[in-house]
Amino acid sequence: MKKNVIVGQSGGPTAVINASLYGVVYEALMQKEQIGTVYGMINGIEGFLADTIMDMNSVEQSGELELIKTTPGSFLGSCRYKLPEDLKDDVYPLLFKKFEEYSIGYFFYIGGNDSMDTVSKLSRYAAISGSEICFIGIPKTIDNDLVLTDHTPGFGSAAKYVASTVREIAIDASVYDNKKSVTIVEIMGRHAGWLTAASVLARKFENDNPVLIYLPESAFNTDTFIEDVKKALEHTSNLVVCVSEGINDGNGTFICELASDVGVDTFGHKMLTGSGKYLENLVKEKLGVKVRSIELNVNQRCSSSMISATDQEEAIQAGISGVHFALDGITGKMIAFHRTEGADYSINYVPEDVNLICNQEKTVPPEWITGNGSDIGQAFIDYALPLIQGIVNVPEENRLPKFAYRK
Amino acid sequence: MKKNVIVGQSGGPTAVINASLYGVVYEALMQKEQIGTVYGMINGIEGFLADTIMDMNSVEQSGELELIKTTPGSFLGSCRYKLPEDLKDDVYPLLFKKFEEYSIGYFFYIGGNDSMDTVSKLSRYAAISGSEICFIGIPKTIDNDLVLTDHTPGFGSAAKYVASTVREIAIDASVYDNKKSVTIVEIMGRHAGWLTAASVLARKFENDNPVLIYLPESAFNTDTFIEDVKKALEHTSNLVVCVSEGINDGNGTFICELASDVGVDTFGHKMLTGSGKYLENLVKEKLGVKVRSIELNVNQRCSSSMISATDQEEAIQAGISGVHFALDGITGKMIAFHRTEGADYSINYVPEDVNLICNQEKTVPPEWITGNGSDIGQAFIDYALPLIQGIVNVPEENRLPKFAYRK
Repeated sequence: MKKNVIVGQSGGPTAVINASLYGVVYEALMQKEQIGTVYGMINGIEGFLADTIMDMNSVEQSGELELIKTTPGSFLGSCRYKLPEDLKDDVYPLLFKKFEEYSIGYFFYIGGNDSMDTVSKLSRYAAISGSEICFIGIPKTIDNDLVLTDHTPGFGSAAKYVASTVREIAIDASVYDNKKSVTIVEIMGRHAGWLTAASVLARKFENDNPVLIYLPESAFNTDTFIEDVKKALEHTSNLVVCVSEGINDGNGTFICELASDVGVDTFGHKMLTGSGKYLENLVKEKLGVKVRSIELNVNQRCSSSMISATDQEEAIQAGISGVHFALDGITGKMIAFHRTEGADYSINYVPEDVNLICNQEKTVPPEWITGNGSDIGQAFIDYALPLIQGIVNVPEENRLPKFAYRK
Repeated sequence: MKKNVIVGQSGGPTAVINASLYGVVYEALMQKEQIGTVYGMINGIEGFLADTIMDMNSVEQSGELELIKTTPGSFLGSCRYKLPEDLKDDVYPLLFKKFEEYSIGYFFYIGGNDSMDTVSKLSRYAAISGSEICFIGIPKTIDNDLVLTDHTPGFGSAAKYVASTVREIAIDASVYDNKKSVTIVEIMGRHAGWLTAASVLARKFENDNPVLIYLPESAFNTDTFIEDVKKALEHTSNLVVCVSEGINDGNGTFICELASDVGVDTFGHKMLTGSGKYLENLVKEKLGVKVRSIELNVNQRCSSSMISATDQEEAIQAGISGVHFALDGITGKMIAFHRTEGADYSINYVPEDVNLICNQEKTVPPEWITGNGSDIGQAFIDYALPLIQGIVNVPEENRLPKFAYRK
């Protein structure tokens, strides 16, 4: 008897997480000889536990599958649900009983670190319980912080949004170029500065804005920062500075913690806001210059106007490859991206052990950070430029709220 | 002897203020029989006083004139310089002496209220001093608050950015649709709520997000607001609320003033931040629900990815019409947009008395605001929809920082 597929999305959305969903569903529907029904779990594993699933065939037949390729956000809805560490917990037999009820043979989970943790636990429980279900992780995160992969789908589009937006902010800030000003742009990234580093791609010439870029990977010192700003204002009247939300003093204290209380999310991550706001007030106080701060906020991960064609294509391919590997009996793996050595940029899709990936964090290599922690070097530019290439023209009709078309 | 043209830009930039500059320069360069040199003043009238001007012919010859049509920000740079009320002030003879030195016959100023104030004063001084220079205002403001015109260039693109971005924020917020949440989006607009009202265009069906929309035109009551939010959460799990930066209690106290100190800009306008942040904290305190606030910030006025083709074309036509009227000897006028009565949307470009326009503010008509001040009616949608139509595909090479190509 043919086994069924189930696919889910988890964690924060990206501009191309639905492109990966498209890849999985498109390819699974193609493999009619080996696969029965293709299910989507609504709101991830948490929704699956509540039996909220849908038949993805209807999405394909309505023509909506093509549409979701360029729709940001998670079409199936998401969750932030952490499975218990203890594999003896009651939830595991419950989950696998449900898998059996739905005749699931192949399980795909599209997400970041925490989603790979789910894939890890489910595949480990399958091993000890004798289940033959294949569990495959499809990477997704704007943070680009997964290990064992060159980069992750979602990063390229977010990086393109950051670079384009910072460039437009720099143009906007420069219209009063007979007056000195400082604009501080706060970019997403708790511990990994990949997205903030992408702001370097906004530059068109040497010393162009953003002149100063600070990542969480370098210890941030407020005195040095003020000196950096003072020096930069000597050659750039309308200075743009980019900072990660997670810049910290190098000893675990976030700069924004100097200002305000912070909360903690389900996974124990500190919820940060306001490193930009904090520095805005600092610059005002220390230098008395005109200053504003801008938080790029969720548009970094949900803007369809800046989808990178390269990112979109790779997100689809990750989904397609996942289906192929699962049909080959591969389990407990994440589809990793290996960059081909040599002149031309290309990617091989390789299954890597999800247990080595979950709960790890890949940060920007120290040697790619220059200017004593205030700049980004050419190595990063060479790495990131291929990832933002290509324009995707998104039809205006396509920008639908999700539940306008999820029946 | 042929007279020369000078054109400047003033106030905050928009996505299409350079399209109007294109219109003036393109048409002025075409009228070779009547016009000599076409000058641009760098940083508006303030820069002109410091003799920072440029020959726009070089911009046309380098091919950059075509490029600036889709470049946001003010190509010539801007200023916020208020001419003295007293026409007997020394600055007036100084300015007109400079106009004479450069043989200026036609003066174009692209801007909003404050720029029309400059056109008004210069044309009135010309009248009492016997100068024959023609002074023409070309409207520009994302705020859409100029009187005697159906709308202003810059508003359509900003409205399109707001509608698209709010729609994407709503998609992003809905991925955890098994958990209740509130997202508050703060949109530019001190006294006029046009841009915030445009968020209604994000809706795809009845009761779709943004469910609640608050403009500065209606008195804002925090108790009523909390009741509105509570009620809306009953039918919409992931609620999106849009508020103007300038929402106030109806007696002149801005909601954000309840929270923090505010500064004042050159023109005596209060500089606001934080009505969204204030309401975020209020909702957290009163309802204990997950809540975040997002300030759309300067990207509303500088995003090239959301230029409305209609807005761009009208901005160009406003510039072209300005040149024609000036050559006919018209002075002290702003190019106003009159919407043709009837089924199909079209615009006539008509000179209106700048003295009746400057320092006035057109707000959203009370009858277009519904839901006891928490919603926007169909009349606004009918008004605004034609203004955001049409996609402009902006080449990636085009997103240049201004000083990369202003020699």
